[in-house]
Amino acid sequence: MDRYEQVIELAKRRGFLWKSFEIYGGTAGFYDYGPLGSTLKRRIEQIWREIYVIHEGYMEIEAPTIGIEEVFVASGHVGGFSDPLCECKCCEEAFRADHLVDDIVTCADGLHIKELDRVIAENGVKCPECGGELGKTYEFNLMFKTNIGPGSGRQGYMRPETAQGMFVDFMRLARFYRDKLPFGATQIGKSYRNEISPRQGVIRLREFTQAEAEIFIDPSNKEHPNFQRFAATSVNLYSDEAQDTGVMESMTLSEAVRRGTIAHEFLAYQIGLTDYFLKRIGIASDKLRFRQHKKDEMAHYAIDCWDAEIETARFGWVEVVGIADRTDYDLKAHASISNTELSIYREYTEPRIVRSFVVKPDMSKLGPLFKGKAKDVAEALKLMRQEELEKDRITIIIDGEEAEVPKEAVDFTEETVKISGENIIPHVIEPSYGIDRIFYSTMEHAFEEEKWRTEEEVDEDARIVMRFKNEVAPVQVAVLPLLTRDELIRPSRDIKASIKRKGLLVAYDDSGTIGRRYRRNDEIGTPYSVTIDYDTVENNTVTIRDRDSMKQIRVPVDNIADLLYGLIYGDSEFESAGEAL
Amino acid sequence: MDRYEQVIELAKRRGFLWKSFEIYGGTAGFYDYGPLGSTLKRRIEQIWREIYVIHEGYMEIEAPTIGIEEVFVASGHVGGFSDPLCECKCCEEAFRADHLVDDIVTCADGLHIKELDRVIAENGVKCPECGGELGKTYEFNLMFKTNIGPGSGRQGYMRPETAQGMFVDFMRLARFYRDKLPFGATQIGKSYRNEISPRQGVIRLREFTQAEAEIFIDPSNKEHPNFQRFAATSVNLYSDEAQDTGVMESMTLSEAVRRGTIAHEFLAYQIGLTDYFLKRIGIASDKLRFRQHKKDEMAHYAIDCWDAEIETARFGWVEVVGIADRTDYDLKAHASISNTELSIYREYTEPRIVRSFVVKPDMSKLGPLFKGKAKDVAEALKLMRQEELEKDRITIIIDGEEAEVPKEAVDFTEETVKISGENIIPHVIEPSYGIDRIFYSTMEHAFEEEKWRTEEEVDEDARIVMRFKNEVAPVQVAVLPLLTRDELIRPSRDIKASIKRKGLLVAYDDSGTIGRRYRRNDEIGTPYSVTIDYDTVENNTVTIRDRDSMKQIRVPVDNIADLLYGLIYGDSEFESAGEAL
Repeated sequence: MDRYEQVIELAKRRGFLWKSFEIYGGTAGFYDYGPLGSTLKRRIEQIWREIYVIHEGYMEIEAPTIGIEEVFVASGHVGGFSDPLCECKCCEEAFRADHLVDDIVTCADGLHIKELDRVIAENGVKCPECGGELGKTYEFNLMFKTNIGPGSGRQGYMRPETAQGMFVDFMRLARFYRDKLPFGATQIGKSYRNEISPRQGVIRLREFTQAEAEIFIDPSNKEHPNFQRFAATSVNLYSDEAQDTGVMESMTLSEAVRRGTIAHEFLAYQIGLTDYFLKRIGIASDKLRFRQHKKDEMAHYAIDCWDAEIETARFGWVEVVGIADRTDYDLKAHASISNTELSIYREYTEPRIVRSFVVKPDMSKLGPLFKGKAKDVAEALKLMRQEELEKDRITIIIDGEEAEVPKEAVDFTEETVKISGENIIPHVIEPSYGIDRIFYSTMEHAFEEEKWRTEEEVDEDARIVMRFKNEVAPVQVAVLPLLTRDELIRPSRDIKASIKRKGLLVAYDDSGTIGRRYRRNDEIGTPYSVTIDYDTVENNTVTIRDRDSMKQIRVPVDNIADLLYGLIYGDSEFESAGEAL
Repeated sequence: MDRYEQVIELAKRRGFLWKSFEIYGGTAGFYDYGPLGSTLKRRIEQIWREIYVIHEGYMEIEAPTIGIEEVFVASGHVGGFSDPLCECKCCEEAFRADHLVDDIVTCADGLHIKELDRVIAENGVKCPECGGELGKTYEFNLMFKTNIGPGSGRQGYMRPETAQGMFVDFMRLARFYRDKLPFGATQIGKSYRNEISPRQGVIRLREFTQAEAEIFIDPSNKEHPNFQRFAATSVNLYSDEAQDTGVMESMTLSEAVRRGTIAHEFLAYQIGLTDYFLKRIGIASDKLRFRQHKKDEMAHYAIDCWDAEIETARFGWVEVVGIADRTDYDLKAHASISNTELSIYREYTEPRIVRSFVVKPDMSKLGPLFKGKAKDVAEALKLMRQEELEKDRITIIIDGEEAEVPKEAVDFTEETVKISGENIIPHVIEPSYGIDRIFYSTMEHAFEEEKWRTEEEVDEDARIVMRFKNEVAPVQVAVLPLLTRDELIRPSRDIKASIKRKGLLVAYDDSGTIGRRYRRNDEIGTPYSVTIDYDTVENNTVTIRDRDSMKQIRVPVDNIADLLYGLIYGDSEFESAGEAL
C-alpha cells in the first residue's frame, strides 16, 4: 500500500470519505464526505471564510449552481471548455484521446484533435478495453447540460466555476461597496466538470467544491495597501524561468516583486495569503510551492498566474489553488454579451481640463431635410471624426442608404472642458481554491504511522495518528470513562455536556481498554482525550491526554470546557495547562 | 407596496437578495444571495448545525448533488415526482394545468390529469397568454436531468432532496455509529426542482437549500431519552382534527403525546427542537404553528407528519419544515433496488429460546438422484413449509420442471434454539428544513417601519429597522468615526481591527451625517454602532448605540471587542455594559 492507499483506506474505514452510490456499484468521479470528512471540510472552509470574508472584507455571495447559456457564452465555456474525446467503434467505450497517446508523445494534452488522430493512426493505437478500432477524435464539452423548465426549455449548465456568479453581479456589488475600488466578493460552493473518464480518485472529481474570490482593482494601481504584512514572507517560487532550469527558489515576496518575478504587489499579497492559509490548516511547508504559468500555458488575456502546488505521495505536485490577474477580460465579455455597461466611475483627485472635439448638428436644417430620420442622422454625425467632417462632401449611411448632409447643417469645434472623472473597467485578481484537493492533502500530510511506544501498552505494533492542526481536527475532544461503572459514567456525561455547550465537537467512548480508545482517537486525529477515573470521584479532577506527545496532565473538572477551548482555539500550552503526570 | 414588496425592495437595494442573471434579463426560480443575504443565511445554517450536529450529535455528511438513476428509482422520484403540464398549441407556452383551473374547482392540485383535461374542456379554458387552444395535460417530471460522462452517458439527476444521500450511506453510517440505535446524519446543501412556471419569488425556487436530518431509530422504541427537555413546551398545534374545525390549539408537547395528537415522543421532541430553532433565529411565536398532514395527504407509508408553518404577509401560512416518521420505507426501497441488506443487528437484552422448524435434506440420497442439481434441490427443500413436507408426495420445481423427492431423502424436525439477537430495519424520523423560506420569513418578521423619533434627528419621516436577533444579524458592528479627520480615523481603524480579530463582521462607514449612518445600519439590522469622537481622543472611550432602543452607552476602548462579543453571543445586558448617556 502506498501512502495514498493508506490514507484512503483510513478515510473509508473511519468515515472521512466514501465512494458515492456504493450500494449501487458507485460512479467514477463522485465521493461522499462522511461524518468526519464533512466536519474537517467545514473547518477548512470556515478558516478560509475567516481570512477572506472577515479579515480581507470580501463578502460572500451565493449564486445558483445552474447557469443559463448566455453566462457561459460570455465566459468562453460554451466555446472552449472541452477535452478531446475518442470512442471505440467496437465496444463504444470513451477515452480521452490525449491519455491514449501520452506514452507515445510528450505534452499530449497540448495537441490539437487532428494531431491526436494522426498520432493514433500512425502508431496503430487501439481500444485499451477491447482492442477495437478507434473513431475520430472530437471536442467534448465538459459542462453538465440540463434544461430549465418544461419541454426543450431553456438551455442550462451546471457551473464549471463559481467565479461567473461574481462577474454577473458586478454592478450590484459595485453599488454595495459604494463604487470604491478595490472591493471583492467570494463564494464557496459546488462546481461541476463532466470528465470523460475520471482517474485519480478524489483528486479529479466530477462534482467538487471551490472557494473563490474575485477582487476588483483599479488597473492603474496594483499596489496593495497592506503589502507589508507579507513583504518579508519567504515562499517557494517556481517561476517560468526557474522551470527551465528545474530549480525552485525560496524568496521573500518583496524581493519577488522587486525583481519582477511576480507581476505586482496585489498578486504577491494574494500568494502570501494562500501560503498563510495552507500552512495554517496543516500543509507541510516543504511540500508547498508556487508555480508560475509559462507564457504559452497562460490564458491570453492574463497578465500573470501562479498555482499553489502541494506535493503528494502518489500524484506528485498537485495544483490546488490558482492565483491570477485576469485583467478586464471577464467584465468586458459580460458587458458585450449582455449589452450592459460594467464599469466604475472613478473621480479624479483633481478635475482635468481637456480639449474635446464636439459636433453640433443643426436640427433646424436637418429636420426639413430628413424628416423622421433627422434624429438618427444627428446621432450618426456626432460619432464622426474631424477629418470626415472637413471633407468637401459629408456622407452618412442611414437605413443602409448613403445620404449627403449639407455642410451648413453641421458645425464642429474643439472646446475646453473640465471633467472630474471617468468610467473605468476594473481588473480582476482571482484566487481560486480547490477545496477537495486541499482536503485530501491535509489528510495526507497529517497521516503518520509510528513505531510502537512503550508508554501506552496496546497490542499493536504501530500507532497511526492523524496529526491534524487543532483548528481543523474534526473531533476535538474524546470523553472516556475509565470503566463502564455508573459512578464514572455520570460525571463523564456531565463533562461531555459542558464541553458541548462551548460549541466543541465531543466523542464519547466507553468500549474497550483505555489504550485502545486512545488509539482509535489518534487515528481520527482527536487532539485531546479526557479520562474520568476514581480520582475524579474523589477530588473532582480528570486527566487530559495530548494526541501528539501522548503526555498527560491532571486538571480540575470545574473549568474544563474553557481550558479545552483555549487549547484548541487559543494560545494555551498543553504542558502548563495542568499538573504533569 | 405590501410587506413582501417592502422586504424584497430592501433586500435588493441593500444586498440581501438579487434576481439571478439580472444583466441577462433573469430567469424565474433563481435568486442570488448578496453579501448580507449570504451572511444571514450562513448564520442561520450555523445555528442549525450547532443544534443538530454538536448538541444532538447527528453528524453532517456531504453527498453529491448529482445522483444516479437507481437512487431516484428507489426513492420514487423517477416514477412519481411530477406536476401536470399543459402547453398551448399556439404559442407553446407551458402551464401547470392545476393552476389554470384553480379558480374553477376547489383542490385543483388533487386532480388527476384526465380530470384536469375534462375541466379545461368543459369550461373552455384557453391559453392565458395568447388565448390559443390548450394541448393534452401530461405529467412532467420535476427533476433536472443530465448525463454523466460522454455520449448519451449514464442518466443523472440533480437531487430533489438531500435525504437520499443519507439513506444510500446507511450501512456506512451504521458502522460509524457502531450499530447503536438511535443515530442520525444531517446534510445542508442544494436541492433542485424544475418547476414548470415558478411564481411566488423566493418562496418557490428551482434551486434551493435544504437542511435535513435522517434519524434512525428502533421501531419498537419511539420514546426519546431527552424528552423532558420539551415536555412542558407549549406549541401551536393545528392537528388533523383541528383543521376540520379551523381552530388551532396551544398545547404542551407532553400533553400532545399523552392525548395521541402527536404519534410518539420522538416526533414530539423533533417538533420541540424545530420550535426552539425557529424562535431562536427570530420567527415570531404567534406566527408559527405546526400543522399535521391530513390522512389523505400523508404519504401512504408515513405514520405521522407535521409541517412547521410560518405566517407571511402575502403568502399566508407557508410550510418551512416537514417533520415525519417515514417508517422503514426508504431503507426497504434501497435494499430492494440495490439488492443489499440495509439492517442493524440488535442484540436482545437476554437471549431468547425459540422453537424453530428445521429441514435436513440428506445429500447422500439426493446426490445420486439429482447429480449436479442436488444442491439446488436441497436449497429448495429448506424453504418448504411443514405441511408441504408432510404430504404423501414431495414435489419441487427445478429448472422449470417438476421433480419428485423421495420422502426418505429429507428429514425435518422442530428444534429448540437460543438466539441472541435479530436484524431489524430501523424507522426513520426526518426533520426537513427549507432554508430559503426560513431566510425570507426571518427577514419579514425582522422588518419594521417606525414612526420618526425625536431622539435622533434625521430628515426622514420613518425609520426602517431590521430587528434581527443578535446571533443572525449579518453585520454585527458598525464602526463610525464622527468626522473624517485623521485623529478620529486612526483610532477607528484600530478599533475595527480589534473587533475583526474577535471574528465579528464589522462595517466601517465614514460618509454622511452620523444620524444617516445610524439609519443605514438600522436598515440592515446591525445591532451595535460604535462611534469614535473627540472624547475618544481625550479619554479613550467610545459610545455604543443599540439598534432597537437607540440608547447609547459610553465604554472604554480597551476591551471593546470582548464587550461586543458578549453582547452578541453571550448574556450581557446592553444597559449595564457601560455608562448610560
